[in-house]
Amino acid sequence: MRAWLPFLEWAPVYSKSEAANDLLAAVIVTIMLVPQSLAYAMLAGLPPHVGLYASILPLVAYAIFGTSRTLAVGPVAVVSLMTAAAAGQVAAQGSALYLEAAVVLALLSGLILVAMSILRLGFLANFLSHPVISGFISASGILIAASQAKHILGVPAAGDTLYEIVRELVPSLGSANPYTLAIGVGSVVFLFWVRTRLKPLLVTAGLKPRAADMIAKAGPVVAIVTTIGAVILFGLDARGVKIVGEIPAGLPPFGTPSFNPQLWWDLLPAAVLISLVGFVESVSVAQTLAARRRQRVVPDRELTGLGAANIAAALSGGYPVTGGFARSVVNFDAGAETPMAGVFTAIGILAATLLLTPLFRYLPQAVLAATIIVAVLSLVDFAAMKRIWTYSRADFAAMAVTILAVLFVGVEAGIVAGVGLSLALFLYRTSRPHVAIVGQVPGTEHFRNVKRHDVATSPDLLSIRIDESLYFANARFLEDTIYDAVATRPELKNVVLMCPAVNLIDASALESLEAIAQRLGAAGVGFHLSEVKGPVIDALRRSDFFSHFKGEVFLSQHEAVRELSPQTPTPVQLAAARNMRARATRTG
Amino acid sequence: MRAWLPFLEWAPVYSKSEAANDLLAAVIVTIMLVPQSLAYAMLAGLPPHVGLYASILPLVAYAIFGTSRTLAVGPVAVVSLMTAAAAGQVAAQGSALYLEAAVVLALLSGLILVAMSILRLGFLANFLSHPVISGFISASGILIAASQAKHILGVPAAGDTLYEIVRELVPSLGSANPYTLAIGVGSVVFLFWVRTRLKPLLVTAGLKPRAADMIAKAGPVVAIVTTIGAVILFGLDARGVKIVGEIPAGLPPFGTPSFNPQLWWDLLPAAVLISLVGFVESVSVAQTLAARRRQRVVPDRELTGLGAANIAAALSGGYPVTGGFARSVVNFDAGAETPMAGVFTAIGILAATLLLTPLFRYLPQAVLAATIIVAVLSLVDFAAMKRIWTYSRADFAAMAVTILAVLFVGVEAGIVAGVGLSLALFLYRTSRPHVAIVGQVPGTEHFRNVKRHDVATSPDLLSIRIDESLYFANARFLEDTIYDAVATRPELKNVVLMCPAVNLIDASALESLEAIAQRLGAAGVGFHLSEVKGPVIDALRRSDFFSHFKGEVFLSQHEAVRELSPQTPTPVQLAAARNMRARATRTG
Repeated sequence: MRAWLPFLEWAPVYSKSEAANDLLAAVIVTIMLVPQSLAYAMLAGLPPHVGLYASILPLVAYAIFGTSRTLAVGPVAVVSLMTAAAAGQVAAQGSALYLEAAVVLALLSGLILVAMSILRLGFLANFLSHPVISGFISASGILIAASQAKHILGVPAAGDTLYEIVRELVPSLGSANPYTLAIGVGSVVFLFWVRTRLKPLLVTAGLKPRAADMIAKAGPVVAIVTTIGAVILFGLDARGVKIVGEIPAGLPPFGTPSFNPQLWWDLLPAAVLISLVGFVESVSVAQTLAARRRQRVVPDRELTGLGAANIAAALSGGYPVTGGFARSVVNFDAGAETPMAGVFTAIGILAATLLLTPLFRYLPQAVLAATIIVAVLSLVDFAAMKRIWTYSRADFAAMAVTILAVLFVGVEAGIVAGVGLSLALFLYRTSRPHVAIVGQVPGTEHFRNVKRHDVATSPDLLSIRIDESLYFANARFLEDTIYDAVATRPELKNVVLMCPAVNLIDASALESLEAIAQRLGAAGVGFHLSEVKGPVIDALRRSDFFSHFKGEVFLSQHEAVRELSPQTPTPVQLAAARNMRARATRTG
Repeated sequence: MRAWLPFLEWAPVYSKSEAANDLLAAVIVTIMLVPQSLAYAMLAGLPPHVGLYASILPLVAYAIFGTSRTLAVGPVAVVSLMTAAAAGQVAAQGSALYLEAAVVLALLSGLILVAMSILRLGFLANFLSHPVISGFISASGILIAASQAKHILGVPAAGDTLYEIVRELVPSLGSANPYTLAIGVGSVVFLFWVRTRLKPLLVTAGLKPRAADMIAKAGPVVAIVTTIGAVILFGLDARGVKIVGEIPAGLPPFGTPSFNPQLWWDLLPAAVLISLVGFVESVSVAQTLAARRRQRVVPDRELTGLGAANIAAALSGGYPVTGGFARSVVNFDAGAETPMAGVFTAIGILAATLLLTPLFRYLPQAVLAATIIVAVLSLVDFAAMKRIWTYSRADFAAMAVTILAVLFVGVEAGIVAGVGLSLALFLYRTSRPHVAIVGQVPGTEHFRNVKRHDVATSPDLLSIRIDESLYFANARFLEDTIYDAVATRPELKNVVLMCPAVNLIDASALESLEAIAQRLGAAGVGFHLSEVKGPVIDALRRSDFFSHFKGEVFLSQHEAVRELSPQTPTPVQLAAARNMRARATRTG
């Protein structure tokens, strides 16, 4: 019971001091979340109040079902972009069907997340590698920033890919609205300044770092209030500055989206990707924060929390939500102690929805676009690209394909291509594993690669180590490798396949081992195994392998050499090798 | 040059005795191949002479470009079934478009195989695991046999899946043609008898086993001659026995198929699968035979040979071909020494096409169906199913899904599902690897699982071995495993991650290692690596990992324990452990 309703753990012992801390954090998060919610709804192609709706009930649902103490859920940039891409494929922005599609996406994502929780499918998220996620988020950041440029310029421009966006923007550069441009560029510059410079300034002025940070986080509110004032004062809306316009005040509309099988089916693949991306983003934020306070997040339970939040979003006219990095950090830093902070934030947003919406009428879209641009450009992580390029070309390839596909094909294509390529590269690598002919490190019972270490070997015994599980993709490679190694050594009497890195021998590889044993046997060469792991030997014993196998299975390679080739290494060889060893590297 | 034209190796030194042997083998293979070619063309839904065309020029092309000395190419059962499935999706059997589709499939397969050869993509075939291939061939055998039942019964029935075939057949059982049924059932019984009983009988009668085998292989010819005689003698064609009918005599029609982009595009996926299946079947036959005579087959060159054969088939009005098992074994056993036997066979089939086609006019379709049924039922390998079930449930699952999908969805779906599932299962297994806490086997420098061996450990040192490459799919698992292990051991001072089974650390796992090092460091626990392999350490050195990493990298686990926990194991513990070891198993 407690596993499924984590709030039962903290709610019964909820204290006044915790309440005070949660309340303070909620006020700060609310101030940050109101403009973000409006902006991300715009990014998703939805009316701004939908963003507010997505920031009320989902927070309460997560407080009940989520395991993180400090995660703040709501609309986030990347998921908003994915929502826009998916809904845009089935309906035109602004249509009733588009809005319905967004709600259905939230419902489907919620159901998928809950199903994944029940079926314990959280591990699926592990197949999104860090380079793919990092590339996806960086590329989404660039794409989102580009998509907001039209609001800064005050020109109409559509387009889902970077190429389309640029193609639509370039011809309209000349017709940019000067007032919109002033508000947009001014807001971007101001928000960047707030983000990067204001905090050090305030600290220099004597504020405590935490307080300075909190004030800096309210920057968007200042920009919003100022620009609303400017629009009203100078009648800028009549001069072509696009404003948010009438926002319906009042409670979110409660109810289930209508069941439209074709629409649900069309949106299903996108909902799966939104669920996975949202889950990965949310869990990594939650784990980062939990580790700082030595708390624990249970990924399979997080699925329930996020699923409940998305279902709640769907039932209250919202769109897909997930745990956001920036707001969760603010919540954490502002001192939130329990998910009650989320409930208080929900009340705050509800109050804003009921009372403040008339004020947002004159809010220029350009300032919302500026908020988005400043937020998402911090997601673009060039350092990660460089680091991954240096470390592994295969990982970089997966990252690069993800980035290029997101920018020039689409967000969903980006994830699918990245995951597909990273899995394909892993499979390709395991299909051509590293192989080492090994010899004994003199003076030890340890065996290492003859190419890297000065080790003792014997001409009548070949010790070969395959550094991979033996399975269908490398079964033929295994056969070819051993046949080639044997063909070039006429003095050979025994071959030992050293298996410390073999974690699995599947049916295909088993047939290959039988073929090798038979073929070497026909050539008068003994074939043996060493250092075979427990689970692998158990599996071999289940088959009839040992009824034909004439070789030995040695516990250690040392034992194999002692038994099969006791005369080597000779003391003289050993001394020589020991001298050489002084020149060898320590590892490798 | 020689690599691409393997005939340059044997042709210049071709001897008279080789020619004599090749000629004899060619005569026997021709006798076997003529009825097979007619039958498999019928299976592919094509006019019977198309099967003959596919058995002339492709054999010559393979003789020039193939590397196997004894492989006999031509129409085979499984590829014929795949051709029928693919062509049936774009046109109705009997239409000109259907015939064109078959020719285009041969051309596309040929081009794909040649492209794979040039791009060295032969390794792709390794991703078809033995259980998937075995399941695919068994299921195809069942499906083919079922599809031929209508010819045995003499009733019309269509259907691509087992369910459809049975549904169509059952209502027409009552209307079976008695003459057709007699010929069909009689032929099946006769051919089974020839296949299983005739050879022992002939051997008992004094013939040499090889001669007896050759005579038994001519069984289909006897059935064909007898039934043709019966049809002519009793006018059975007028009594409802379906006969092959007029076959155009003369040379195959040479020419390229017309370029129809839509048709080519539609057939492309099927052509890819036909290429892969044909390649796998052919290479495994070729390698089996080559191994018997200690010859060598070069898989990447085999792609050229098969590609050329298929292009030749397309240019001479044939359909996709590949190396067949039965005919290659006959060719081998009959003493073929060089691919010249294939050229002689081609001449034999050409002669049959020019001279014998009038005789085939009265050939009952039921006898061809009987030939197919007897041939394919030997492909159904229940023993393999049982063996794989015993050895590995994961391999069996891939096999079972392949079989069920072939029987009830389609041949292409079967391969795709089988390959997909076997890859997914491999990835799933690597995402939750086997983990062992290890200790020292007393009296040795060897370390094994504490759960399986009586080994010495120390409370302040945890040696943990992860039996898998560390990559994105198990990076989180690695973190969770180590955190959990550390959380339950308060006395711990050092953790050594033993990496003999780690063949790769990708960028995601590298981040996890850094996170682990940092978190254990914060808790005052040292984190070290041991037995890291050369290529892995090289990659780590390329990153900035060692600039933060405060632990040691030990060459061997023994060295790690000696340095980190020199006081253990004590002599008393060692003696105790040594006693216990007497009871332990030798391996595991």
